[in-house]
Amino acid sequence: MRVFLKIEYDGTNYCGWQIQPNGVTVQEEIEKAILTLTGEKVNLVGSGRTDSGVHAEGQVAHFDTDSSIPAEKFAPALNGLLPDDIKIILSKRADDGFHARFSAKRKTYRYLAYESEQPRPLYDRYMTKLAFKVDDKKMDEACKKFIGTHDFKCFLASGSQVKDTVREIYSAKVERDGDKICFTVCGNGFLYNMVRIMMGTLIKVGEGKLSASEVESVLEKGERINAGATMPPRGLTLLSVEYD
Amino acid sequence: MRVFLKIEYDGTNYCGWQIQPNGVTVQEEIEKAILTLTGEKVNLVGSGRTDSGVHAEGQVAHFDTDSSIPAEKFAPALNGLLPDDIKIILSKRADDGFHARFSAKRKTYRYLAYESEQPRPLYDRYMTKLAFKVDDKKMDEACKKFIGTHDFKCFLASGSQVKDTVREIYSAKVERDGDKICFTVCGNGFLYNMVRIMMGTLIKVGEGKLSASEVESVLEKGERINAGATMPPRGLTLLSVEYD
Repeated sequence: MRVFLKIEYDGTNYCGWQIQPNGVTVQEEIEKAILTLTGEKVNLVGSGRTDSGVHAEGQVAHFDTDSSIPAEKFAPALNGLLPDDIKIILSKRADDGFHARFSAKRKTYRYLAYESEQPRPLYDRYMTKLAFKVDDKKMDEACKKFIGTHDFKCFLASGSQVKDTVREIYSAKVERDGDKICFTVCGNGFLYNMVRIMMGTLIKVGEGKLSASEVESVLEKGERINAGATMPPRGLTLLSVEYD
Repeated sequence: MRVFLKIEYDGTNYCGWQIQPNGVTVQEEIEKAILTLTGEKVNLVGSGRTDSGVHAEGQVAHFDTDSSIPAEKFAPALNGLLPDDIKIILSKRADDGFHARFSAKRKTYRYLAYESEQPRPLYDRYMTKLAFKVDDKKMDEACKKFIGTHDFKCFLASGSQVKDTVREIYSAKVERDGDKICFTVCGNGFLYNMVRIMMGTLIKVGEGKLSASEVESVLEKGERINAGATMPPRGLTLLSVEYD
C-alpha cells in the first residue's frame, strides 16, 4: 500500500527536509517514527527538499508499506511518536502511481518579513526583520513580473548544478498587514533558494534601490549578481503542494 | 533618572516575569543586562507578573538609574545583551512619579486557540489546540457578560491569597479567523489565572456545555467550580499596558 502524508513542521531546529550525514532532518524523524510503528525501514519520498530552518505547513510525502494499519490511522499513530515540531496533518491511501515529487503540479510558498527598529521576539521565529520601511505597493507591482514562464537562473543559488532553470509562476503577490509584509508565490516548481532570492529582490524594490521594470531586466539578463540577497530561512514556509 | 521600558518576550522558556529561586525569569534576565550595561544592581518594577510560559507583546517596567546613558538608548544597548526571546521595544525617560504597576490604568490580554484534529507545529507555540469545533458567536455573546465591574472570584486560581477580587472589564470580544479563535479582553486589572479561566469558561460555552446566560450566574455565584478549566499558558499574551 502506498501512503500519502501531509506534514507540518517548524523547521527551526532541523537541517532541512532531506536526510544528511550531519544534523537531524525532518525526513529522518518521520522515517524513524514509521520504523518504530511498523518495523519497516521505508524510503519516505518528499515533494522536494526544504532548506535548513525553513518551515512547512503542507509538505507532502509518500511511502510504501506492508503494514495492516489503515492509511488514515498513520497520522494519529505517528503523531504520538513524532517530536512536537513535526506532525502529520493528514494520512490517506494513495494510488500506486502517485509520486509525491513527480506528480506534484503546483507548490505555494510564503515569505514573511516585518518592519521594526528593535527585534520582536514574538515575530522572529517565522519572520525576518527589516530595519527600514518598504513600499509594499511597489513590491507587489514588481512581483507580478515573475508570473509566466521564465528562465529563473538569476534566482538560483550560486554553486547549484541544476541544468533546467526554466519554471512557470502562476501567481505572486505582496500584501501588508500593519508592520508585516507577506509575499506569496505559486508555481510549477522552484530552484534552490529561489523564493528567498525573489524576496531579497523584492526588498530592494521596496527600499527604492530597484524599480519594478528593472526586475524584468534582472530576469532577462539572468545574472545572480543583479538580484537581491538570499533572505534568511526563518521567514519561509512551504504552504502547500497540489496534485491533479 | 527613572526609565520606562516596553518589553516583548516569548515566555516559552521562562518561569514567568518575576524573579524566583528556581528557574530563569524575564525580570532576572533584564536586571542582569542592566547590571552589565551600567554596573548598577537595579530593581526592575513590572506592571504585574506574567505566569510561566505566558508571552508579552507590551509588558511595561521601570527602574531608576544614575547612568549617563540617554534613556532612549537603553533599548538598543540592552537588546545587544538580552537573549533573542526577550527584547526592549522602547525605552524613554519617565516622570519620577511614574510607577509601572501603580500608575497602570488598563491592561489588554489576548488568548489564542485553534481547532484541529491533529496538533499543528506552526500554531502550537502561541495557541492552544482544541480537538473540537466551537461556536465563536456564542462565545462572543458570553464574553460580553464580563464587561463592567464584577466580583471575579469565580475566575481566581484556587489557593490565591488576594482579598479584593473586584475588577472592571472595559471590553471583551471573541473573533474567528478560519480555524483560529481569538479572545481579547481589556480591564483595569486581572486576578491570578483570571484570563486563562475566562477562556476555559468561554470554551465550555463554545462547546455548548454552558449558555451565555449561565455565564452570568457563574459570575454571580462566585464559585470556582462553576467556571471552566484553566487554559494552558502558551495561548496567552499580555498585549499592552496603558497609562494616562
